[in-house]
Amino acid sequence: MAFPNHAVIITAAGSSDRFNGNSTDVKKEYLSIDGHTVLWRATAPFFEIPGCQAIIVTHPEGKEAECGLALEDLFDQNIVPIILVGGGKSRQESVHNGLAMLSTLGLEIDYVAIHDGARCFVTPDLIIRTLATATVFGGAVPALPTTDTVKIIDDNGMITAHVDRSHSVGVQTPQVFRYPDIWEAHQAAAQTETAYTDDTQIFTDHGLYVGVCEGDRTNTKITYLDDIPDAEEQIEQYEQMRQEVQKTRAATELFRQSVEEYRRESER
Amino acid sequence: MAFPNHAVIITAAGSSDRFNGNSTDVKKEYLSIDGHTVLWRATAPFFEIPGCQAIIVTHPEGKEAECGLALEDLFDQNIVPIILVGGGKSRQESVHNGLAMLSTLGLEIDYVAIHDGARCFVTPDLIIRTLATATVFGGAVPALPTTDTVKIIDDNGMITAHVDRSHSVGVQTPQVFRYPDIWEAHQAAAQTETAYTDDTQIFTDHGLYVGVCEGDRTNTKITYLDDIPDAEEQIEQYEQMRQEVQKTRAATELFRQSVEEYRRESER
Repeated sequence: MAFPNHAVIITAAGSSDRFNGNSTDVKKEYLSIDGHTVLWRATAPFFEIPGCQAIIVTHPEGKEAECGLALEDLFDQNIVPIILVGGGKSRQESVHNGLAMLSTLGLEIDYVAIHDGARCFVTPDLIIRTLATATVFGGAVPALPTTDTVKIIDDNGMITAHVDRSHSVGVQTPQVFRYPDIWEAHQAAAQTETAYTDDTQIFTDHGLYVGVCEGDRTNTKITYLDDIPDAEEQIEQYEQMRQEVQKTRAATELFRQSVEEYRRESER
Repeated sequence: MAFPNHAVIITAAGSSDRFNGNSTDVKKEYLSIDGHTVLWRATAPFFEIPGCQAIIVTHPEGKEAECGLALEDLFDQNIVPIILVGGGKSRQESVHNGLAMLSTLGLEIDYVAIHDGARCFVTPDLIIRTLATATVFGGAVPALPTTDTVKIIDDNGMITAHVDRSHSVGVQTPQVFRYPDIWEAHQAAAQTETAYTDDTQIFTDHGLYVGVCEGDRTNTKITYLDDIPDAEEQIEQYEQMRQEVQKTRAATELFRQSVEEYRRESER
């Protein structure tokens, strides 16, 4: 059995609010763990899966260059096309933009994997397992039993319901869906008032099925500053680099202006 | 405002199945992190809370001595009475046994804190916060927003429902309840067919209220082997020590028998 043709959407357009509060706008996906950025680590394993036709990476407005930089050597390779797409105001909008881009590419795609750019410990094994599960159910997501017991609370912080532990799971990404079913479901979801935080819900609300395969305990999501060793130091370095680049840009711009002025003066 | 009189039940009667599989019966609570056992770390902070009248620690059948040993110096202090109680077949039964023991002590107790012996990073701050919340609602539990999105699945591993993320929390321990409300609720729960895995549900099913206070991200639960550095090495050492003790016991027993035999022979 051959691997199905598929594309990948890596979401990295969020504001990283929980990660760094308001102190900096450096994205967690652009920082490094053991010599590679979080975004590189979240993306690289997908290159190892046969049948991958395209990888789309979403980024916040104005951060296209930084996003490309964070992808390191992946951005420059010629194995699988990698396309940067501006994200929207919400995760839902960003995935929608990614799927919309995909629909214009004219590729033969059977499945789409949607993966969180902050889940940098994903393995080829897990991707293949999820892809295989999606060929059974149409949609698939890796999941693990919830370690903390889950409760539903009201606005006053009072417990109103208990979630049955034996049937509750915490879901991870990648989530894999049959294409164009997920594109159809996303377009339908965009017409509703519901703010979706999760693609499996968009899929099942469209009357489609999502199966669960075994997740990986190590496939955690970088959420807080201390999830990255030496994060504060890295942020400082990152901001310095950014200032240098801006200074260089400003100097280049000044030089360009002075050259033009010289030309105009000469032409008089 | 004074701290209310309260007692503490530390549950450490589980089988640690997820922790070590079937390879060993060494309990995770008896292993050490940075020089103190998990059980010591889970128990010690409760000694710092004013108004604590008694601490009950549950243990699996036949492990009373090991449990006492794991409590280290806490077991021998004379500040707060510490009582070892045999646990039951389930967490519910163990807590029930602890509450039953408490009811025989004739102490003046307004609240009971129930804490998981594997949550060894609990802080006095968190205990006080939960105790304070219990004085408002009658019952209280520390909780954090769930990091992984929670889904309900059926027996085939298909997603059947999506838990609303904005109102779902993962709960920790200690859980604090008004006494004797929790004792009443537990006795009522024991009469039902429901297998309860969580005391807050026992409390709310009895028509009582449980409020949520802010949990602590560091207040995690030792669940898997790799949650403890050098766990395998420690287990090996622990089993060796246990064999030594058994040998000593066997030798002592043989010596006792030979002395008795000598006596009987002499008396003839």
